[in-house]
Amino acid sequence: MTSRWDRLGNSLLQSFIEYETPRLVKVHNVYLGLVIRVCQILVFSYVISYAILYERGYQEFAQVESSATVKLKGTSRSHIPTHENATTILPEWRHLYSRIWDVADYVVPPAENGAFFITTNVVITPNQTQGSCAEDPAIKRAKCKTDEQCIKDKYLVFGHGPMTGRCVPSDRSQRTKVCEVEAWCPIERDGLPFGMTKPLMDHVDRYTVFIKNSIAFPFFGPQYRRNNVIPGPKPTIYHPVRRPLGQIFWLGDVISLSGGNFTQLSLKGGVISISIQWNCDLDYDFDKYCLPHYEFRILDTGWNFRHAQFHETGRRTLFKAYGLRFVILVDGLAGKFSLRNTILNVGNGLALLGMTTFVGEFFLLYFAKEKKNVVAKKYDYITKRRNAIKVPTLDEAEVATLNQNADVFTLKSDLP
Amino acid sequence: MTSRWDRLGNSLLQSFIEYETPRLVKVHNVYLGLVIRVCQILVFSYVISYAILYERGYQEFAQVESSATVKLKGTSRSHIPTHENATTILPEWRHLYSRIWDVADYVVPPAENGAFFITTNVVITPNQTQGSCAEDPAIKRAKCKTDEQCIKDKYLVFGHGPMTGRCVPSDRSQRTKVCEVEAWCPIERDGLPFGMTKPLMDHVDRYTVFIKNSIAFPFFGPQYRRNNVIPGPKPTIYHPVRRPLGQIFWLGDVISLSGGNFTQLSLKGGVISISIQWNCDLDYDFDKYCLPHYEFRILDTGWNFRHAQFHETGRRTLFKAYGLRFVILVDGLAGKFSLRNTILNVGNGLALLGMTTFVGEFFLLYFAKEKKNVVAKKYDYITKRRNAIKVPTLDEAEVATLNQNADVFTLKSDLP
Amino acid sequence: MTSRWDRLGNSLLQSFIEYETPRLVKVHNVYLGLVIRVCQILVFSYVISYAILYERGYQEFAQVESSATVKLKGTSRSHIPTHENATTILPEWRHLYSRIWDVADYVVPPAENGAFFITTNVVITPNQTQGSCAEDPAIKRAKCKTDEQCIKDKYLVFGHGPMTGRCVPSDRSQRTKVCEVEAWCPIERDGLPFGMTKPLMDHVDRYTVFIKNSIAFPFFGPQYRRNNVIPGPKPTIYHPVRRPLGQIFWLGDVISLSGGNFTQLSLKGGVISISIQWNCDLDYDFDKYCLPHYEFRILDTGWNFRHAQFHETGRRTLFKAYGLRFVILVDGLAGKFSLRNTILNVGNGLALLGMTTFVGEFFLLYFAKEKKNVVAKKYDYITKRRNAIKVPTLDEAEVATLNQNADVFTLKSDLP
Repeated sequence: MTSRWDRLGNSLLQSFIEYETPRLVKVHNVYLGLVIRVCQILVFSYVISYAILYERGYQEFAQVESSATVKLKGTSRSHIPTHENATTILPEWRHLYSRIWDVADYVVPPAENGAFFITTNVVITPNQTQGSCAEDPAIKRAKCKTDEQCIKDKYLVFGHGPMTGRCVPSDRSQRTKVCEVEAWCPIERDGLPFGMTKPLMDHVDRYTVFIKNSIAFPFFGPQYRRNNVIPGPKPTIYHPVRRPLGQIFWLGDVISLSGGNFTQLSLKGGVISISIQWNCDLDYDFDKYCLPHYEFRILDTGWNFRHAQFHETGRRTLFKAYGLRFVILVDGLAGKFSLRNTILNVGNGLALLGMTTFVGEFFLLYFAKEKKNVVAKKYDYITKRRNAIKVPTLDEAEVATLNQNADVFTLKSDLP
Repeated sequence: MTSRWDRLGNSLLQSFIEYETPRLVKVHNVYLGLVIRVCQILVFSYVISYAILYERGYQEFAQVESSATVKLKGTSRSHIPTHENATTILPEWRHLYSRIWDVADYVVPPAENGAFFITTNVVITPNQTQGSCAEDPAIKRAKCKTDEQCIKDKYLVFGHGPMTGRCVPSDRSQRTKVCEVEAWCPIERDGLPFGMTKPLMDHVDRYTVFIKNSIAFPFFGPQYRRNNVIPGPKPTIYHPVRRPLGQIFWLGDVISLSGGNFTQLSLKGGVISISIQWNCDLDYDFDKYCLPHYEFRILDTGWNFRHAQFHETGRRTLFKAYGLRFVILVDGLAGKFSLRNTILNVGNGLALLGMTTFVGEFFLLYFAKEKKNVVAKKYDYITKRRNAIKVPTLDEAEVATLNQNADVFTLKSDLP
Repeated sequence: MTSRWDRLGNSLLQSFIEYETPRLVKVHNVYLGLVIRVCQILVFSYVISYAILYERGYQEFAQVESSATVKLKGTSRSHIPTHENATTILPEWRHLYSRIWDVADYVVPPAENGAFFITTNVVITPNQTQGSCAEDPAIKRAKCKTDEQCIKDKYLVFGHGPMTGRCVPSDRSQRTKVCEVEAWCPIERDGLPFGMTKPLMDHVDRYTVFIKNSIAFPFFGPQYRRNNVIPGPKPTIYHPVRRPLGQIFWLGDVISLSGGNFTQLSLKGGVISISIQWNCDLDYDFDKYCLPHYEFRILDTGWNFRHAQFHETGRRTLFKAYGLRFVILVDGLAGKFSLRNTILNVGNGLALLGMTTFVGEFFLLYFAKEKKNVVAKKYDYITKRRNAIKVPTLDEAEVATLNQNADVFTLKSDLP
């Protein structure tokens, strides 16, 4: 009498209030039991200790938002005596090298985004003007014997300007003839003031840099915001062991902590990274435990570039500046308890527990003494041949016998 | 007759065309059924709604490639009357502060990678030359009574140069004597033009910055490329509510949207982030729906640096510039349908469904009324004691009886 | 005699040395067997080939730490004849455009962090001083007829300074009257030297840039550190096919490889990315196989900014510089064998194998010929009705009969 839909509804409801549990064979085998328990304990302790506790799988993470500003302090004096022999600088230009260098002189450009550069060695070419002059003989193919070798308006590779077409005596040595070029004249004499013996500026290792690094974890809310001036409002000098939270660094310390040699790096320049790491566990007190960690590394050796001071539109002083480029890298990750991630990681951990069954089944079916018994109990078969035969299950039979309250167990064969 | 290998091949083939399905006990228990279905529905709806739909698990993601350039507009006039009392600036230098400031004056350096700086307050020291002069008495240990306190060639901490060894009257007050230093002279008088009452430059909040941000998602192909000049080729002024897609920003708006006070920040400087977010769903129309979102935050307060204009090699004007450093942070993630990720995430979601069996088995074996019946049906045992006895399985027996078409079920004991 | 705790301990020990294996029904069905094996093979080969081999799931990965410095070489000559008609430059200023440009001229600022800018086109306004002069008539509302239209101290939008309140003849054309402003005078005449026909500087495509990129993978140890000067200490010129590892790039090559037109970009400027990718497999030889890959892309077209040379505090030369901004993006990922990741990825892969059972069960229960037999064998039932009846299991019965060494299988009903 019930309609088709009622029946479908019934069977859906039936399956909804029905629970399926697998039928299992329990094997009493000490070795196998131990193997499988040890496997499970290993996976379980891995999940708990490594994935949950060590890698903090119960937290969610967010990157730091950071701003770093630097403030340099320090002055240096350089001096080349007029009668010095150990220099290639022209006597009439030596007074340019005898001077005081302060922040506005040695930091070029005066501000950079996440980096700063400090001049340590310099080649100065004063009062250059636009004109025609003899090319530097060090330039490839600059030397000539006749005007024909200097093709007008052509550029020499790495030269200082287009050739005028004339072959003229070099200003470096009267015996050499070089092509004349249109350029900023006089052309730079590219030699370090003291060669490789020492940099022009001493005392640079006594400069200090105050790095102010403000960070925030906006993902977790506006309250997670602080800077590296710890503990108080007064900055302190960094020391790797005694004051690892200091914000003022001696440049000499930075270089020695990065494993470099200050004089070597000062001569030809270099690139050094100052890495600030903020790895914070926001489940603990933010102000007390979220602290920066500083690291220093030499990224590259050799770094110079040219810049000029333009006294008039057509008159300048050229500087070839060697020095230390510091790059500030701020890295940070904060974690905070998250129910979602806890559940997900525990879930994934439990899924890994399933892997132990592969091990267990393998040992059971190939190595356990009981393997034959197990196979016998474990498997039931439906083969092609028997497809035609309707096989009543033991369970149905059982139910039947129970209902009949019968003592003898019978199998009703439905064969035609 | 068949060789070993044939038999192995046969059994491999056999297992290849064989399918194993677990034997289950169905328990009709309303409470248990409901518990397990609710668990499954929770996990299932989590997987579908959160992991697939909300976190777009059906997509693959790639980061944005971005380039941001800025164009500043605006001029400001500053003025210090010659007879002003509220300033510490020397009367003869006041004319330097009465001037017009345009982009080439107040943006230092003129271009930066991902940032720009706007001068709002400045201390000018004109016509410095290299020489010897009295140190700033504010420097620690600069004050002296006799020449012996000024050790020649030593540097004072944060001083302006090495000492000459002489103790001379300060230029700040005739009663104070300080050490003479080799330095850029005269030495800067470090005081804000109007103290903490107001910054030198007004009108800075009326400057505009046009931010042009070109982005691309090269991972998904060259067609996913656009910029933030939306909708047309003509830039519009940003308004957080009415024109959230504008590209021209009043600096005053940027500061007030970041929650800062313009005058306060202008006095001593600050660092402000302009964050541009491009979170794009490439399954929708790229041009119509892939739009930027702007956010502004104050990262730091207090920022100044010194730079100089070198009129001649040995003569300069020093500027101590306070101002607003803006950092442009572009963030972006685009998602696009990916069959692989869909399958992977659905797969992982189904794996989580397995977790519900833990819950089900726990309730079944400890709380369900049927627990005893379940245990009886669920488990079969192979114990040590019986290891010696070869136990024919019911299934084998069944097969046997079926083959014999026998009615009575017997157990053949293989005991010796 | 045994205490409660002993018993609990016993049963715990019991379960510890007990192994549970599921009872299965083996179905001999060729189609079903094939379906399930094909599924398993697909998942398995996906796991092995894609997740393990292609995405190197057996490795752990870490990001590159990088430092890039650039060295530019090249000079250019520009020239505007005094009697040129194709230019808007005032005849008396044309000599400013006839000059040599070298690195210190065209790179502004002289050093940047991860970027460099090369001037290609420029508008020069020499000898500006602070004063009052007629506003540029191109500025909106700058034109006037009477002084009343020029409100004293008000700023025009995008104007050059506050108005003085006077309406004066324009210096551009005597017929136009514009408001007078306080500004840097004379006011810039904003027109490209040769309009859109050609950039001021030619030969820029023959400039070279030497990019030195030092990288490290500190996560894997200090030995993984190298730079892009490959193979030897001598840099070579890049060619996309013949020398893909060169470090010296012709700017013309960079632009053409990025798909741009040099002249077009030079006129109004542009932003170009130089992307260096280091994707290294540290399981192979680091020096031999960890090599950079270069890519070039145009990020934006149109880029200019203003900067000035301050000859005196109150006198400057203003430059509006158009040019090419190159941004260096270094990306890198190194992988190295990790046992942990191998296990995790194999584990996750095996978990995916579980997905095939969904497919198998579905086919088995709805499409297989044997579905009825399977249902009969697969399921056992515990229904509400039978809850009251204590059902002895076959297994218990079996044990009993075995112990009694009985031949006939009996079911003892415990009904009252």
